[in-house]
Order: sequence, then C-alpha cells, then structure tokens
Amino acid sequence: MKKYWSRKASSLSPYTAGEQPKIKNLIKLNTNENAYPPSPNVFSAIEAAGAHLRKYPLLAMDALAEAAARAGGLAPENIFCSNGSDEALALCFLAFFDPGKPVLTMDVTYSFYPVWAKLFDITMQILPLNDDFTVPLQEMTGARGGVVLANPNAPTGIALSAGEVEKIVRQNDCVVIVDEAYFGFGAQSVLSLVKKYNNLAVVRTLSKSHSLAGLRVGYVAANPNLISALLAVRDSFNSYPVGTLAQAGGAAALADEAYYKANNEKIIKTREYTADALKAMGAEVLPSAANFIFARPPVPAEKVFKKLREKGIVVRWFNKERISGYLRVSIGTMEEMECFIGEMKRILNG
Amino acid sequence: MKKYWSRKASSLSPYTAGEQPKIKNLIKLNTNENAYPPSPNVFSAIEAAGAHLRKYPLLAMDALAEAAARAGGLAPENIFCSNGSDEALALCFLAFFDPGKPVLTMDVTYSFYPVWAKLFDITMQILPLNDDFTVPLQEMTGARGGVVLANPNAPTGIALSAGEVEKIVRQNDCVVIVDEAYFGFGAQSVLSLVKKYNNLAVVRTLSKSHSLAGLRVGYVAANPNLISALLAVRDSFNSYPVGTLAQAGGAAALADEAYYKANNEKIIKTREYTADALKAMGAEVLPSAANFIFARPPVPAEKVFKKLREKGIVVRWFNKERISGYLRVSIGTMEEMECFIGEMKRILNG
Repeated sequence: MKKYWSRKASSLSPYTAGEQPKIKNLIKLNTNENAYPPSPNVFSAIEAAGAHLRKYPLLAMDALAEAAARAGGLAPENIFCSNGSDEALALCFLAFFDPGKPVLTMDVTYSFYPVWAKLFDITMQILPLNDDFTVPLQEMTGARGGVVLANPNAPTGIALSAGEVEKIVRQNDCVVIVDEAYFGFGAQSVLSLVKKYNNLAVVRTLSKSHSLAGLRVGYVAANPNLISALLAVRDSFNSYPVGTLAQAGGAAALADEAYYKANNEKIIKTREYTADALKAMGAEVLPSAANFIFARPPVPAEKVFKKLREKGIVVRWFNKERISGYLRVSIGTMEEMECFIGEMKRILNG
Repeated sequence: MKKYWSRKASSLSPYTAGEQPKIKNLIKLNTNENAYPPSPNVFSAIEAAGAHLRKYPLLAMDALAEAAARAGGLAPENIFCSNGSDEALALCFLAFFDPGKPVLTMDVTYSFYPVWAKLFDITMQILPLNDDFTVPLQEMTGARGGVVLANPNAPTGIALSAGEVEKIVRQNDCVVIVDEAYFGFGAQSVLSLVKKYNNLAVVRTLSKSHSLAGLRVGYVAANPNLISALLAVRDSFNSYPVGTLAQAGGAAALADEAYYKANNEKIIKTREYTADALKAMGAEVLPSAANFIFARPPVPAEKVFKKLREKGIVVRWFNKERISGYLRVSIGTMEEMECFIGEMKRILNG
C-alpha cells in the first residue's frame, strides 16, 4: 500500500486535529475557536485587498509585520509572519533545533511538538509535569538543543508568570520557543523580552485571540538574527506563505485591539462562570488562562464526552496517559456555556 | 552572526523570488502573473466565506478538491490541496523522495527544485538540456529516486507533448512529478493520466492560469496512495494550510473555466504578437506554451534588463550559466506589451 512513499513519509505519526462534525445546531467547544466574530475592520480590509489578488502577495509583508510589531512594542525586523502558528512552529524547529541535541519539553503539552521533532529527526527530552500539572521549574535548565514551552500550556490552560518564563530563557543557552497561542485570555506575555534575549522566540497566532482561525495568520517575534534564520528556512520551503487577504485581514485585526480586548474579557468572565459551575458539580477544574478549561468530571470523561456529543455538544477528550480522565472545553458564548452546564448537570444526575 | 541557527538553516541557499518594486505606473512583467483579474465569482465566494472566519478551515477541503477534480475529470480522492504549488512541491519532495536516491531533473528549469532537495538532503541528478533547450528525452529513463519535470519548462516556456511526458512516466519506476504551473496557455496536460499511472503526481497552481497569485492555492493530482503520503507529511507539518477564503475563492475560480479560457486565449495571442515583434528586431525567441516568453536580444540581456527598468518596465534576468543572455518576459495586456515592444525598439536602436 505504501509503494512510492519516502522512508520519511512511512515513518511519521501525524497530528490529529480536532474534528469538524457536520451536525446541525452544533455547540462546538472542541477546537478553541474564539466565541465572537472578527472585527468589522477585518472584512473591509479583505474586501479592499481583493483588488490585488491577480498579483503575488507582498514578500516583505510590511503592513502585517508592522501591525504585529506595534501591538508588542517591537520593530518590524522582530517579526516573521506565517501561515498560522503551526507553520511558524514547524519552521522554528527546522531553523533552531539540530538532530542529536535534545529539545526540552513536557509530557503534557501541545501534541504537535513531538510530531515536528519526528519530521525533522530531532530528539525530545520530555519532562513530566508535576502532579498538579504545573511545570517543574527547577528542572527547566541547561537544555542542550532547545526548549519549547506553551504558555499558557495546552491542554491544561495553566500559565507561568512572565518572570518564571524569563528565568527559563536565562537558564538555557539555546533557543527557547515560547508558544503563546493562547495569549489574550489573562496570561502574562514575554513578547517584549525578545528585545532583551537573543535566544527567545515567541510564537503567536491570530486564530484564538483575534477570532481568525479561518484566515491562517501566525507570527514569530524574536531578535533579527533568529528572524533571518526563519527567513532562510522559509525561502527554502515556500516564499509566499501568507496570501494577500490574510496579510490585510491580519493587519486590520491587530490594529483593533480594543474590539478584541472587550470580547476576550467577556470570554474570561464566561470561563470563570463555567469553571465555578463545574466545580459545584464535583469536577476538578485546572486554573485556566486560556479560552478553554481542562476539567476532570466526577465520572469517566470518555462517557461524558460521548453523552455530550449525542446532545450536539462537542468537546475534546484525549485518550492519553495522565489526561484521559479530563475534558478540554472551549469557552463559547455565555448562552452556549449555559447549555453545556445544563447538559452536564443532566449527565451527572444520571 | 549565526548563533543559535540550526546546522540546516546555516547550510541553505534559499530561493530568490522575483522582485516587487514599488515604482509608480510600473509595467510588471517579471513574475508571470496573469494579465487579467480573477473571475467575479471569486469575489462573491470570498465575501460569503467571510462569515466562517472565526472557525478553523474545513480540514477535508471538500469543495476545493471537488472543483479541482471536476476540472480534470478526476475524483476528490485524487486531489491534495496546498498553500500554493510551491508548498505542494516541497511536500512532494518530502513524501516521495529519499536521501541517497538521486532525483532526475534538468540544468535549466525551475530553480526552486535544487533548493527543496538541499532542504531535505536529497541528491539531484542534473541532466543538461539540449542546445536548443529541449529536454533530452532518450535520457529520461531509469531514475532511481524520482523525476521532477516542469511542463512547460521554466524559464524556457518549451513544452513536451502529453505523449512524451507519458513515456517518461512509464520509463521510470519511481514518482514522476510533473509541474504544470503554467498549464492553460497552450501546453498539453497529463492530468487525466493520474488514473492510469500510480507513480505520476501532477502539480498545479491557480496563480497563473486562474489569476490568483495573491490567494495561494495549489494542488496535486495523483492516485489515492500518493495522496495519502502527502496527507501524512502535511499533517506532520501544518494541518490547515489552506484558509477558508482561499478554499472558497479557489473553488469558485475552478468552476468558471469559460471566463479563464477567454482570458488565456487573449494572452496566447498577445504572446504571439510579442514573439513576432521581438524576432523582427533580431531577438531569438524560444517557442513558448506559457504566459511568458524567453528571448535572447541581439545585445547583452543584462543591459536591456537595466534600461527597461529605468523606463518602469520590469522583466526577469537570471545571472546564470547558459541563460544569462536571455530575458524572461511575462505576457501582460496587449497595451503593456506594445509599450514593452516600443521601448525595446528604442533600446536596440541605441
């Protein structure tokens, strides 16, 4: 069956993205999309950019890089734009990590990290999280090949403080990738520290905080030397990763922080409502700084996952060691979460 | 300066895309963009798709795959969609070619092929084109690791017949990638042959034929076994490479063949006008089946390139062995090409 596959293709264990079920009136709480639509400015920017579709996108992506830089108090030379942050992370692995030099990461974190490592023949040194799913900070030191750290972590939602992350950056003489996919929902950011540390790469996406999962815009913030490595790798793979509409829409989104701040504050409030309601019904809920919560219901999680799905509510359950007792639930609108909580009550009451 | 770069990043020789000069009233004939805008249906499809930007794109890309399949008389299982055809080609190298097994290609062809080979540690076996820049067909046999062939070739514009390409597919027991980036301008296609040969992968882009360079949509047509290898590699790199707007716009473009056929016939006529006019002033013009021509002016090409640029006409000149005497000129509108020809006359008359 695998005739003509490369040895590499045959050896891979690809990442599995959350499902996109075709169910009517679905309450979709499984892929951490923002509960609210993008800024109206995004749509007008996309419409205006349509006039240029015949031509190749701008290689330098000036407007997008400037908007990302401005939002973080950085310069455009600090920004590398990408087709979503997964592409950015993949290119970071290729640009900064070497086969034979182990890269430090956790046992419970974004499950794409070991997939990229395998794709590029990079060894991972996997630290177990503490029993309470916090990062064992005292062990995050002296990595030989690199560090990759999601903050807040996924799927736990637990965040380190900026000071704790800074300490990790200082204690490792190799590139430390801080994956801030879930910035904007209460966690402290280390974005501005890229001016201070030449081994820090902060990766972000507009998918969650800026309601643009469908547009595919991510970026890396780092010092210009690391950005040059990313450009060398990008221009050896695909010179035009971010299309004209994505550049325009992404820039417009980044320029409308007030709109997103208001939405994301609503999401934080809805998250606290949801966490409190789950705790009240006997669930353990990890402290989240993301737009999802990770909770252990008082009955088997797989069973709850299936029963919710029957009612048209889709959450994510990972059939994996240490976390198979938990559900990851994206924070939707208050109406959606009231439905979810209502259904949870019915399930737990039998 | 390269502290913290991976050995891989340090070793690369990235591809150089055509420049995008910021000159007013520019006549841009350097990156082979289509002379005409996309179908109006593309814009309405993009507008409608905006309603879904909050959510992740459809993983299966059903509508885009179906439109691409229909245009080629294939099934959706024969189609792999990508963020432009450069990404598709990069993933093909990773999915089908192995280090240590040389991949056959030409000395004068798309200059990104050796860049991908270097990125993925693949050796290229480079055949020199004949003196007239045609492919040495009798030598296109028995490749060990694979074949990559642009048809029509770039930057020459010369096309093989479908029968000649089929012979190459038959004579090599490894994957033959046929890069049809410039389909739609007169060359014969082997798209439908993917039903017949399990080692044929046809790569296409909507950038040229469908006026969508800014949207980033490409695809691979192949048998489902090869498509599975591409999916395994893709899902180890970036699960969502084609955004919601690109999926919708690309599908709408592929569904409006009549619109593009009419435009592309105009481009073919303009190409013949341009070629005849250049020949009349003593240039050698290779026979083109693409939306560009490759021509050797009777004076040094670099000089002509610079003089054209001073007049706001940008074409492409490659400072490379065998082809540094030539210019690659994209076919713009008839008005643009009349300007170009007028300027060429002035340059050649001193």
